[in-house]
Amino acid sequence: MEKTLDYARASQSRFLEQLVEFLRIPSISTLPEYASKVRFAAEWLAAEVARIGMEHVQIFDTPGHPLVYADWLHSESAPTVLIYGHYDVQPVDPIEDWVSPPFDPEIRDGKIYARGATDDKGQVFMHLKALDSCLQENRELPINVKVIFEGEEESGSVNLENWVLDHTDLLTADSVLISDSSWLNSDQPTIPYSLRGIAAAEIHVYGPKHDLHSGGYGGTVHNPASALATIIAALHDEVDHVKIPGFYDRVRILSADERAELQRVPRHLEDWQRETGLEKPWGEKRYSLIERTGTRPTCEVNGMWSGFTGTGGKTIIPAEAHAKITMRLVADQDPFEIQQLFSKHVMGLAPDDLSVAVETMPDVGWPATTPIDCREMIAAREVYQTVWGIPAVLVPGGGSIPVVATLQRALDIPILLMGFGLPDAGVHAPNEWFSLDQFEKGIEALIRYYHLPDS
Amino acid sequence: MEKTLDYARASQSRFLEQLVEFLRIPSISTLPEYASKVRFAAEWLAAEVARIGMEHVQIFDTPGHPLVYADWLHSESAPTVLIYGHYDVQPVDPIEDWVSPPFDPEIRDGKIYARGATDDKGQVFMHLKALDSCLQENRELPINVKVIFEGEEESGSVNLENWVLDHTDLLTADSVLISDSSWLNSDQPTIPYSLRGIAAAEIHVYGPKHDLHSGGYGGTVHNPASALATIIAALHDEVDHVKIPGFYDRVRILSADERAELQRVPRHLEDWQRETGLEKPWGEKRYSLIERTGTRPTCEVNGMWSGFTGTGGKTIIPAEAHAKITMRLVADQDPFEIQQLFSKHVMGLAPDDLSVAVETMPDVGWPATTPIDCREMIAAREVYQTVWGIPAVLVPGGGSIPVVATLQRALDIPILLMGFGLPDAGVHAPNEWFSLDQFEKGIEALIRYYHLPDS
Repeated sequence: MEKTLDYARASQSRFLEQLVEFLRIPSISTLPEYASKVRFAAEWLAAEVARIGMEHVQIFDTPGHPLVYADWLHSESAPTVLIYGHYDVQPVDPIEDWVSPPFDPEIRDGKIYARGATDDKGQVFMHLKALDSCLQENRELPINVKVIFEGEEESGSVNLENWVLDHTDLLTADSVLISDSSWLNSDQPTIPYSLRGIAAAEIHVYGPKHDLHSGGYGGTVHNPASALATIIAALHDEVDHVKIPGFYDRVRILSADERAELQRVPRHLEDWQRETGLEKPWGEKRYSLIERTGTRPTCEVNGMWSGFTGTGGKTIIPAEAHAKITMRLVADQDPFEIQQLFSKHVMGLAPDDLSVAVETMPDVGWPATTPIDCREMIAAREVYQTVWGIPAVLVPGGGSIPVVATLQRALDIPILLMGFGLPDAGVHAPNEWFSLDQFEKGIEALIRYYHLPDS
Repeated sequence: MEKTLDYARASQSRFLEQLVEFLRIPSISTLPEYASKVRFAAEWLAAEVARIGMEHVQIFDTPGHPLVYADWLHSESAPTVLIYGHYDVQPVDPIEDWVSPPFDPEIRDGKIYARGATDDKGQVFMHLKALDSCLQENRELPINVKVIFEGEEESGSVNLENWVLDHTDLLTADSVLISDSSWLNSDQPTIPYSLRGIAAAEIHVYGPKHDLHSGGYGGTVHNPASALATIIAALHDEVDHVKIPGFYDRVRILSADERAELQRVPRHLEDWQRETGLEKPWGEKRYSLIERTGTRPTCEVNGMWSGFTGTGGKTIIPAEAHAKITMRLVADQDPFEIQQLFSKHVMGLAPDDLSVAVETMPDVGWPATTPIDCREMIAAREVYQTVWGIPAVLVPGGGSIPVVATLQRALDIPILLMGFGLPDAGVHAPNEWFSLDQFEKGIEALIRYYHLPDS
């Protein structure tokens, strides 16, 4: 392994040149006019995995953008790792805020600036260079590897689930490895061991057939905005709990071990205050900040609107009122069941003098959890410790990456999120960057991870 | 008087031609580019009142559009009536919905179609023609008359109050007569004897310094939309009363006489259902529909907004949430006091983890009431009975015409709303019209009113 590591270290500037070439491809999956560029990125990637010695390289077409598959399966007694990543990127708006063009990568102050540098082309490419180093130096890998690179992650992975369910045999493995996450702080290696699920719904309140003059009708018509407000107010109780009956029934109770581990997560009130601009956190008092975002479900208004919202006044009773709601879910909540409980609760609050409808959104995300004592997690922590010299912290993630739950539910194997992104790296924003130091150390970490027994 | 009535009847087609000329002037007061047209309308009106024999004709400039004043004060023992009207009109959008151009009046099916036909040029012009008929036929009026025509009613009468307060001596009179209202039904002469006041405020809830990712922060941040909803929900109790402490303290208790009179108002549930498209009225159960709109105060959400309101989803905790509120007030509520009570109530509901601000709007309207047994009211009812053959109904108005309260508070005399508009006449909407029959009968009614002893 030392020779492989030496090879990788010696090849850094060449690796970086190759990464620049990859980042130059504007593979924006959400914009139809970039479809041919997305395909070109898939073809570039397929050629690259073939060039480094991976086998069975294949581009799978989907109703949307293609997937790239490849494998190397010659380490008979070793486990098989399925590496997932995505080669598509977010749009670049507002383009005028970029210091250097998003698809003309530029290195400044030890960082490479480009759209996709962190999310996720840079991290995908680290895997390719780790595998490349092993294969060039040894003509073999210490483990079996399958790679699957998606081109629709930034547009909701809409075709991934069906494709995965159609190809479970092809994807058989002992674990999934994904490098598409970021650290809690710049010097704190971080492993998210769970992600929240998500379920969305809209509440629609319909009142009079059109906006009414509040002089002629005020006092006789139930105001839809007031009715919606009353419903929204009844989604939480006075101790900030979600009031939907049954909402918490399947939520796992935190073990003493897990809470002890969570106490070590360096999630500080001062950081929360700086990030939010607020003084005082809200929420379930008996849970810490990291517990609230990582292990507890929520019910949030994302948007709400009714009536006249322009400058000045308009004396109307609005005809309708609407709200967009998302609920973040934790193990073992079922997003479809939660949507039903939500609908039932809201409809139970609906007044009998207006029409209330709940529209549940079909795209849900399931919560996903990887056991913190599984061998992959232990191996990953050892690698972070070796390369960065400090223990990785295990963090329950507050966000939702639907692909993680999709793969976990389809393959029923541990999923390890071994990411290298740093905070404030401009992910989904202008001036996205990736640290060259993380790039180099991350490749080393991946090589070490591949070499750990049973990893 | 009969000769005057004959003169008026014989002159109808000429009166109508003159009205068309008046309606051709696009005196839209809210649009700055029409300012010269508004002034031209004032000049046209000044010339017309001079031509018919009114005296002391004067155009008063204001910081906005001018006022036209004139008088005729030679009936020494008779009372003085101050006639108020407005010569400015609403904008015409959506212009494409007009069957004939808004400033090219067209007669169809016994109606004249033009912007301002009902509101208020048509009704102003009826007064001019009633006065014209008296002066042409008799060289004198049976009463003393002052007229004041405003050019800013449709843009909030922003300069009227100061002008009135500066000219109370000029405006001294025994009563005010205004023809700027409409009937309850097409065959039901209607006298609004009160108008509600109005007080407006906005509630602003400020949370995190920018929208936050609902994954990373959900569960730790008080959602401003939820907080606003909780405040709005607490503006009414479960029996549809406004929950602001002190809100009803000054509201007059309806007398048995007034309630008996209100029972006679033909305000039917079926009409309310047709107009609103709703089945079931809301509001204070022990008051009838007309009592709720005419004699009880309200607190309405006119608009409310927060976060993401576009198509699809955006998983954010919104940075802020806002609502526009207006309260309709009845005698003897004080709009400024009500704004204070509202602010206090809302600030008392404000959570300690977000910033809440109440912005009260400086333009308020006071409630106004004319005693139903004053001599002007009795005279007007007699006139309606004579001309249309059925008794006028006395209705407490739900809307707010700030000028009425302004004149009443400045001059402290009864204000009679003797309007001739019909329902659904397109006031503030495309295809505004005025009935030619109402035009003719209304002029007769005004001539009769001027002639009634002590009117």
